[in-house]
Amino acid sequence: MMSEPLSYAIIGTGAIGGYYGGCLNRIGLPVHFLLHNDYEIVKEKGLKIKSVTQGEFILNPIFAYNDVKQMPACDVIIVALKTTHNHLLKTLLPPLLKENSLVILLQNGIAIEEEIAQIIGYQRVVGGLCFVCCNKIAPGYIHHLDYGEVTLGHYAPHYQITVISEQLQAIQKDFSNAGITVNLTEDLLWVRWKKLIWNIPYNSLSVILNATTKEMMNHPDIYALIKNIMKEVQLIAKSCNRVLPDEVISHNLDYTQKMTPYKTSMKLDFENHRPLEVEAIVGNSLKIAQEKGVNTPYITMLYQQLKYFDAVNCSHD
Amino acid sequence: MMSEPLSYAIIGTGAIGGYYGGCLNRIGLPVHFLLHNDYEIVKEKGLKIKSVTQGEFILNPIFAYNDVKQMPACDVIIVALKTTHNHLLKTLLPPLLKENSLVILLQNGIAIEEEIAQIIGYQRVVGGLCFVCCNKIAPGYIHHLDYGEVTLGHYAPHYQITVISEQLQAIQKDFSNAGITVNLTEDLLWVRWKKLIWNIPYNSLSVILNATTKEMMNHPDIYALIKNIMKEVQLIAKSCNRVLPDEVISHNLDYTQKMTPYKTSMKLDFENHRPLEVEAIVGNSLKIAQEKGVNTPYITMLYQQLKYFDAVNCSHD
Repeated sequence: MMSEPLSYAIIGTGAIGGYYGGCLNRIGLPVHFLLHNDYEIVKEKGLKIKSVTQGEFILNPIFAYNDVKQMPACDVIIVALKTTHNHLLKTLLPPLLKENSLVILLQNGIAIEEEIAQIIGYQRVVGGLCFVCCNKIAPGYIHHLDYGEVTLGHYAPHYQITVISEQLQAIQKDFSNAGITVNLTEDLLWVRWKKLIWNIPYNSLSVILNATTKEMMNHPDIYALIKNIMKEVQLIAKSCNRVLPDEVISHNLDYTQKMTPYKTSMKLDFENHRPLEVEAIVGNSLKIAQEKGVNTPYITMLYQQLKYFDAVNCSHD
Repeated sequence: MMSEPLSYAIIGTGAIGGYYGGCLNRIGLPVHFLLHNDYEIVKEKGLKIKSVTQGEFILNPIFAYNDVKQMPACDVIIVALKTTHNHLLKTLLPPLLKENSLVILLQNGIAIEEEIAQIIGYQRVVGGLCFVCCNKIAPGYIHHLDYGEVTLGHYAPHYQITVISEQLQAIQKDFSNAGITVNLTEDLLWVRWKKLIWNIPYNSLSVILNATTKEMMNHPDIYALIKNIMKEVQLIAKSCNRVLPDEVISHNLDYTQKMTPYKTSMKLDFENHRPLEVEAIVGNSLKIAQEKGVNTPYITMLYQQLKYFDAVNCSHD
């Protein structure tokens, strides 16, 4: 007997939410999209996706909403908002929950899960990281340029090691059927640090220096600075009993040097005068360092500079 | 019997050289100006100075030169070039020297005297610091906006304490007659650190953050960062046996907070695509810190960021 398929809600149908939700929807899974600015156009014309791996397709008709109260409760709720909007989740999440719903935070940064656990209980919280290049190039039109892998892991208080549930494996299978590789992890914290060792230096410096990854890597002083920052991230991770071997640093440096010149997500936010994810990516890392007594002057200075750029760049809501 | 007046040469007739040389010339002292871009216009129309304290005046006729070999040897040679041009002094200084000439380096930074001592012997080298706001607003036209005090001290190897000579006192008297306060010091190194505790944070961050002093001081994170940087300067000075008490830090912070919003000299250089004085101000300080084993991550990161901005901003000669 076939079991009922999992139903999905996408909170925040931007580039990330639109791409992954779109891929799941395309293979026939029920996906409910919450939209804001693009609601009217997507409701009328559907959601258009142009993907380097999946080709071009339009989802029309589509379950599109501009009000969470109109949406059905779902098995899986994918949060694809920028972390700067996480204060909205207090309102957005409760109406969507069934008894066993999981909430996937497909977001950058660290220590964001705990805030959400306070609202919905930690058992429902899944941390998600995606390694993907995609942009919204027009209202309701998403361009997927490269990569696409996702890592998911259950959250437990203080980022304890968790057990991979059958529910999570079912989600992995759905993604896999949709053509997307999902890695499951028992150690969400390690995965978060492993991503932050890239995000902290490159996201921050791309804004401060107004530079692409290539421009940074080509300058010997910035190369040295990035390495110094990575070493600080390594130290914070170590203070949390998570080992990022030196090879992680050298691999990230080599890999980024060879990468096509790339504008980080924070640089794109900056250019579009959107609030920067300073707190989730840098501020929360710094708080952990301070709690653990780790000295991180480079990351401290990045944070201070970014707070300045963020304040100058946009007046927050 | 009246003694012969001191003769002066000004190497680099920009805002600083033009203002101080102009004031000395105005009271009848023989001053010989070396010019580059503005030579023709100054030769023809004279040097025009508009000063908040001295009013407006034109020096015409004027001893103007565009070739150091045409200039007479002088008693006092005032170097008012940016330190980024100090490599020229090997050629510019020797033709101007008499047996007892003094060379005043009226420049920002630290450890610049030693390079010049290698060329002309340390006995001739005087370090000079000026606390003045002046700009060149047009070719041959200098605007003096505020302040004007100068500090001078003899240089000795390793910035040993020196004795104030009669020659230096005679120069002080000339400046005084020209309406400019000159303080003489036995401890040039202390004075250099005392100025660098301001220059290092404000010059550097004004470029990196694209900000005036006021914009920096109004942002709490940047205020905290500036304080952290000042503490590092304090530590380097201490490693050189020079004490900058905590009050120097609080005084600099209070004073800058109350100051009219101000673009630093490095910011003006940046906006005009001139090479930045990164090495004299930040790089040399860092070298001293490294020699003394002082850990200065904030200044290290400032240096790395400034080297990047300098490289992007202009292709050096």
